[in-house]
Amino acid sequence: MAYFKEISTIAYEGKHSTNPLAFKYYNPEEVVAGKTMEEHLRFAISYWHTFTGEGTDPFGGKTAIRSWDHFSGLDLAKARVEASFEFYEKVNAPFFCFHDRDIAPEGETLRETNKNLDVIVAMIKDYMKTSKTKLLWNTANMFNNARFTHGAGTACNAAVYAYAGAQLKKSLEIGKELGAQNYVFWGGREGYETLLNTDMELELDNLAKLYHMAIAYAKEIGFDAQFLIEPKPKEPTKHQYDFDVATVLAFLQKYGLKDHFKLNLEANHATLAGHTFEHELRVARINGVLGSLDANQGDLLLGWDTDEFPQDLYATTLTMYEVLKNGGLGKGGVNFDAKVRRGSFEPDDLFYAHIAGMDSYAKGLKVAAKLIEDRAFDQVIEHRYRSFKEGIGKEIVEGRATLHTLEQYALENTPPKNESGRLELLRSVLNQYILGDL
Amino acid sequence: MAYFKEISTIAYEGKHSTNPLAFKYYNPEEVVAGKTMEEHLRFAISYWHTFTGEGTDPFGGKTAIRSWDHFSGLDLAKARVEASFEFYEKVNAPFFCFHDRDIAPEGETLRETNKNLDVIVAMIKDYMKTSKTKLLWNTANMFNNARFTHGAGTACNAAVYAYAGAQLKKSLEIGKELGAQNYVFWGGREGYETLLNTDMELELDNLAKLYHMAIAYAKEIGFDAQFLIEPKPKEPTKHQYDFDVATVLAFLQKYGLKDHFKLNLEANHATLAGHTFEHELRVARINGVLGSLDANQGDLLLGWDTDEFPQDLYATTLTMYEVLKNGGLGKGGVNFDAKVRRGSFEPDDLFYAHIAGMDSYAKGLKVAAKLIEDRAFDQVIEHRYRSFKEGIGKEIVEGRATLHTLEQYALENTPPKNESGRLELLRSVLNQYILGDL
Amino acid sequence: MAYFKEISTIAYEGKHSTNPLAFKYYNPEEVVAGKTMEEHLRFAISYWHTFTGEGTDPFGGKTAIRSWDHFSGLDLAKARVEASFEFYEKVNAPFFCFHDRDIAPEGETLRETNKNLDVIVAMIKDYMKTSKTKLLWNTANMFNNARFTHGAGTACNAAVYAYAGAQLKKSLEIGKELGAQNYVFWGGREGYETLLNTDMELELDNLAKLYHMAIAYAKEIGFDAQFLIEPKPKEPTKHQYDFDVATVLAFLQKYGLKDHFKLNLEANHATLAGHTFEHELRVARINGVLGSLDANQGDLLLGWDTDEFPQDLYATTLTMYEVLKNGGLGKGGVNFDAKVRRGSFEPDDLFYAHIAGMDSYAKGLKVAAKLIEDRAFDQVIEHRYRSFKEGIGKEIVEGRATLHTLEQYALENTPPKNESGRLELLRSVLNQYILGDL
Amino acid sequence: MAYFKEISTIAYEGKHSTNPLAFKYYNPEEVVAGKTMEEHLRFAISYWHTFTGEGTDPFGGKTAIRSWDHFSGLDLAKARVEASFEFYEKVNAPFFCFHDRDIAPEGETLRETNKNLDVIVAMIKDYMKTSKTKLLWNTANMFNNARFTHGAGTACNAAVYAYAGAQLKKSLEIGKELGAQNYVFWGGREGYETLLNTDMELELDNLAKLYHMAIAYAKEIGFDAQFLIEPKPKEPTKHQYDFDVATVLAFLQKYGLKDHFKLNLEANHATLAGHTFEHELRVARINGVLGSLDANQGDLLLGWDTDEFPQDLYATTLTMYEVLKNGGLGKGGVNFDAKVRRGSFEPDDLFYAHIAGMDSYAKGLKVAAKLIEDRAFDQVIEHRYRSFKEGIGKEIVEGRATLHTLEQYALENTPPKNESGRLELLRSVLNQYILGDL
Repeated sequence: MAYFKEISTIAYEGKHSTNPLAFKYYNPEEVVAGKTMEEHLRFAISYWHTFTGEGTDPFGGKTAIRSWDHFSGLDLAKARVEASFEFYEKVNAPFFCFHDRDIAPEGETLRETNKNLDVIVAMIKDYMKTSKTKLLWNTANMFNNARFTHGAGTACNAAVYAYAGAQLKKSLEIGKELGAQNYVFWGGREGYETLLNTDMELELDNLAKLYHMAIAYAKEIGFDAQFLIEPKPKEPTKHQYDFDVATVLAFLQKYGLKDHFKLNLEANHATLAGHTFEHELRVARINGVLGSLDANQGDLLLGWDTDEFPQDLYATTLTMYEVLKNGGLGKGGVNFDAKVRRGSFEPDDLFYAHIAGMDSYAKGLKVAAKLIEDRAFDQVIEHRYRSFKEGIGKEIVEGRATLHTLEQYALENTPPKNESGRLELLRSVLNQYILGDL
Repeated sequence: MAYFKEISTIAYEGKHSTNPLAFKYYNPEEVVAGKTMEEHLRFAISYWHTFTGEGTDPFGGKTAIRSWDHFSGLDLAKARVEASFEFYEKVNAPFFCFHDRDIAPEGETLRETNKNLDVIVAMIKDYMKTSKTKLLWNTANMFNNARFTHGAGTACNAAVYAYAGAQLKKSLEIGKELGAQNYVFWGGREGYETLLNTDMELELDNLAKLYHMAIAYAKEIGFDAQFLIEPKPKEPTKHQYDFDVATVLAFLQKYGLKDHFKLNLEANHATLAGHTFEHELRVARINGVLGSLDANQGDLLLGWDTDEFPQDLYATTLTMYEVLKNGGLGKGGVNFDAKVRRGSFEPDDLFYAHIAGMDSYAKGLKVAAKLIEDRAFDQVIEHRYRSFKEGIGKEIVEGRATLHTLEQYALENTPPKNESGRLELLRSVLNQYILGDL
Repeated sequence: MAYFKEISTIAYEGKHSTNPLAFKYYNPEEVVAGKTMEEHLRFAISYWHTFTGEGTDPFGGKTAIRSWDHFSGLDLAKARVEASFEFYEKVNAPFFCFHDRDIAPEGETLRETNKNLDVIVAMIKDYMKTSKTKLLWNTANMFNNARFTHGAGTACNAAVYAYAGAQLKKSLEIGKELGAQNYVFWGGREGYETLLNTDMELELDNLAKLYHMAIAYAKEIGFDAQFLIEPKPKEPTKHQYDFDVATVLAFLQKYGLKDHFKLNLEANHATLAGHTFEHELRVARINGVLGSLDANQGDLLLGWDTDEFPQDLYATTLTMYEVLKNGGLGKGGVNFDAKVRRGSFEPDDLFYAHIAGMDSYAKGLKVAAKLIEDRAFDQVIEHRYRSFKEGIGKEIVEGRATLHTLEQYALENTPPKNESGRLELLRSVLNQYILGDL
Repeated sequence: MAYFKEISTIAYEGKHSTNPLAFKYYNPEEVVAGKTMEEHLRFAISYWHTFTGEGTDPFGGKTAIRSWDHFSGLDLAKARVEASFEFYEKVNAPFFCFHDRDIAPEGETLRETNKNLDVIVAMIKDYMKTSKTKLLWNTANMFNNARFTHGAGTACNAAVYAYAGAQLKKSLEIGKELGAQNYVFWGGREGYETLLNTDMELELDNLAKLYHMAIAYAKEIGFDAQFLIEPKPKEPTKHQYDFDVATVLAFLQKYGLKDHFKLNLEANHATLAGHTFEHELRVARINGVLGSLDANQGDLLLGWDTDEFPQDLYATTLTMYEVLKNGGLGKGGVNFDAKVRRGSFEPDDLFYAHIAGMDSYAKGLKVAAKLIEDRAFDQVIEHRYRSFKEGIGKEIVEGRATLHTLEQYALENTPPKNESGRLELLRSVLNQYILGDL
């Protein structure tokens, strides 16, 4: 194993009182709110960003310098498997995630492609025997290949749809084979470029049918992973069907799928949809579909998916706050769907970035746990809504009020008196918890 | 009647071959696609923008010069009723819409407020006897008064909620009294400023309960208007619960309300949510909830609700395209939820703006009807999805396919071959239909 | 003095280990980087948000509950002066800022308006004799009144322009009278709604002429305040001429005004223009025009000017970093151009908010000072650009290189080798400095 | 010549009364406002989108099907030259544009790269002898190669800067050799990812120095092309230095470059910066730097550069309005910096798209010419600003007014009276001109 340096040997020219590379806040063994950090956070490494990503963008080619660059084809795929398990161990990651096309190259035919997968899956399985790192989830990449230009499960062409079904079937089998705890659907081409050529109703009906087939097949093969849908509003398509949590909820309810799916929520996708990440988490939580996290952050002044490593402590704190309130993520975890910047092209940057992300989440977890333990916001909310605990408020909550009784109440009582929402104070409280001063 | 000039006497300094003020495309009697334009378009005048709006914005006070400016209190309310019916007639509008607080001032108490309403409602009813103009919809303004600072149906204070219920009850009675064809719910304060102080789940549960009460009371009094929810993602609150069509659909399904509601869709709200208006219309249409339109347009380079008069012919064409595909709007109509700009403060501008809006919709209707008659896009779509009419495609659509049969198909057939989506060509076709050249 | 409670008596229902209201980080006497915090930060209270603001928004009326609510006219103006100086003392603010129309009501005529101003200015001057609080800057409100609908210094009507000139003259006199250290120009209506009716060139020429007149008049009366322009890209107008720092720089250079103006930069205006605040500060700094700060924060998911109190520690740290690198703000200061939310309508919220803002800036100052002291980023930058200190790099910087010498260098040397930009690591360093862990 | 079909043989399945492919509005010989359409519009084909573009996006590989796909290396480069001249002729394009790296592949060394260029430049020159198609502009691609990760003229590494200089020198020589009428600078990597590692001042100083070297070298070799800077606010970098027209103006003035540069303005870049295209054109026009157009359109609901073919008639009309008011574009032209969508991957789509773009601009030109001929907006503006033609207004414009005379005027005259800005009416006029009805 020699794809990466030992972390302890990574030198940084900067003068600081302590090494910025070492873990500052993440300690897997440390118990927070009754569980170890590792149990809470279930960090996963994204195969695509970390082992196949090259630093490209729409205006520029590869920048990443990787020790496996000299390989190609299946050899490259194998080298990446080796490198990946070395990295998991060095960065101490309990999980990883991949798309089928990340781990093995496509062949000339579907049959050949599947053969390539078989080779690599066997190799990964072998590695997993001696590694502590498990598969958080796998998925099928149905967006890169030209065949999916107009969609996969929402293709305008039945042959493409069939191909997507075949690819999905294989991916479910791989998930079963490698013990994936979840299986993710991200509809990177499920959407449209223009309504002028789109039969939205047929496309969505077809997509729901594909999901029902997947449920049936998973049952058939005994693959009991949690199914997850990952919302994203746009990019690559002009409009994607899984716009946000609410949109997916509408879809799941309409097609009788709500019992079979939870959601894999990504921070940058939330902001592209015009929401904070904590909003999306809250909506998912109160609807019982908070499944797993794609942990990253966007740039709110840019309009595309930048997939930056999560380092904003406000965001990680409020994220973990919702997760704790949800009683954890169950089978889900915290997957770093994040890529080092094009300009951070050295292998060492992969360590800097992942450690930064883990530390930011760990700090967020600790702050969130303290906020909950102290009931810092809970008591405010309890006080704020106290009028629903008795009298007319209780009648409302219990479904006994009518417009008659409400009118009667309003006519007979003094005008309602509001209390300040205290937004500025609550933000101060949050600051002081983050700084450890309250 | 002397609140407005006769249109024919409005002079415009500009030199043009014809008068820019006259209707160019809107002819209520003209038959398009089997119905008169008036039947298709069912234009409504918004009481708030046109008779109570003053040209204010967050940085500036009243600019509007109106002939009723010297009145105040109930006299002002009465003068506005007189002016409104004069305007409806002069601009030939078949419908109008209002919030309760637009038509009558609030009193010291709820009782007094309701008395004020009674006076004005009686006066409006009287005017309606001799006017052809009907009430498209009414609604309750539960966002302006300070009591609704933290919400109405989602208030954190039960007394406020009760007050909202009382106001809603009165509004339903007014709707019944004036023969409103629809009743609209716009949740201007139903949302949150910060999640730190918000119990989202309780708030949404309560909101659903209020809707159920409204349904029960409307049934009780025999008010058979179509109930409409109007989505808007943000403004005035940081986040509004009725974000967009999909969000409202999720809500309606969750709370067993889907059979009782349709949607009142506003163009500017669609774009604030990150959607085109035609997207929102399409989603509503394929889910059977396209109810009525708030016709306006936003400025996509500005981030707030500008409520401009609809003048973009691309938008009006694609809007009417969806409406025609929906088989019309039923009880709904095309309400100009649009205000003349702060700088267009002269009474004449009200005519310029409304005629411009009507003309833009009329032209859009005619272009859309021709597009449908010629099957300009339909044939493209039919051709594009033809593979779902037979073979494996038919099996998919009919729910007979499985991942097994799809895989078998994919393995046995040559790789799928896509066809161009022809976006650029389809936009050319649209241009040529708008210009009348195809 | 009884407009506000004593801070020590403000009770907060929340359970916290310490009182969230007390200053945690701001200690005016504490020396940081060679100066006291008070000297660094020069906090100012905005008269408009804090003493005339009412919690209104485009969808709702007044919510603010203030102890001076029962006054009106000049009496109200006087009560506000009293309240303001009480507040300055209680919150320990060294400066305040106002628009002419904040402090005194307009009369029927310009003459009467100016008389009202004279009364209040005299009263303020009197208060200032015994108060430690000074006037950071004053300005003229040329956006609220209907006369400025189409602009002031860029009006399409010469009589409006003349009125603006008269108002500006009076404001300069007031600034002189009260010893204002700066004078601000914010062009709230200097822009356009549509280019279709706008002569942009004439408007900008006229605006520059007005600025030259102001310079001449200030010189004439011996008013030596620093003149400041405050950029904002939009709102209230569709497009404002002072879009951002670069736009103002282009204007100042074109019209020979650069030596006479610096900039008053507002955080929320920066983000509305698509920039981070630190970007705007940096551009101003390297061009020698960083004058003063309007300290607030926006909501990057909303598209309008929310003017929230600054509480984001990343932003306050990077802001103070630029300020320290600038050698301070000279005559400028940190003005809280920030308003409590509509829902934070109680007088106590004014204290919560201002203390939160002061604390956030104080913490930002301390972190920034440490970053600079440790050369945490400076050493990275020095290392990164080291090649410009010698050889071909030095030739470039000294202006001795030509395309010939560059080509010769490129042909004769091995291909250039880049180094990682280390974005993720640098963000980690920032986090650790904020948390006090590095 | 067999890379493309004859246009006349391209079949479209749609049923329309006329062929949607034929030119409807563009007739090169037709005289509009005193010049032929061809003289007005000077259309150019972008080599990169049309001959090297492959339909990729950040989530997907090549989709484009091209008849030169089987070539590689220099052979591919040669095939593209052949195909390009065939396309110019078939679509009747008078100009083309390219980056150095579009036309020839990079070699192992700069010397080899330049040799490749020499081969292809000679071939292009040969083709140009018998073609009517000329080179509108060329430029250097300094953004794709990894060496420019941190910038070219703003690199943090002097060796990269030297390489950029060498590449620029060669590009100027190529422009001279092929008779380019303009030379464009687009700073695709001139900006920053994070200020934390950026010396903005040094980078901008260095960039200005490079421009001065380019001016000197062009003079030395007698290359008299118009130099053009192309603003873009972001993408690929977080923040690009040439943000918008105003930013570039500030830069040019600061560094004494204003006499040597005009601007190449791109529609999609304008909207990414928060401006309409006509705004950017207007700012450039009144500052004498309107040089050339990159004709495309963005999607205002998406946050990245979509480079769609220009088909919005409002935009093309208002664009040509500014161009006509500018007295044309001089050496500049209308370059289709536009790409067919990923889903429009067939060669025929290149014709559909370019014809659509040409037609949209031709229609825009005709409408704009009529608007100007009729003085449809000019008379409104003349009337609106008439007060600046006499009295105090004339004094203001002529620089004779002072704050004293303005105040005297304001005190002695009745309050100013504004007139409506008539935005809604003016938009109606625009609609009616576009529809040919006024």
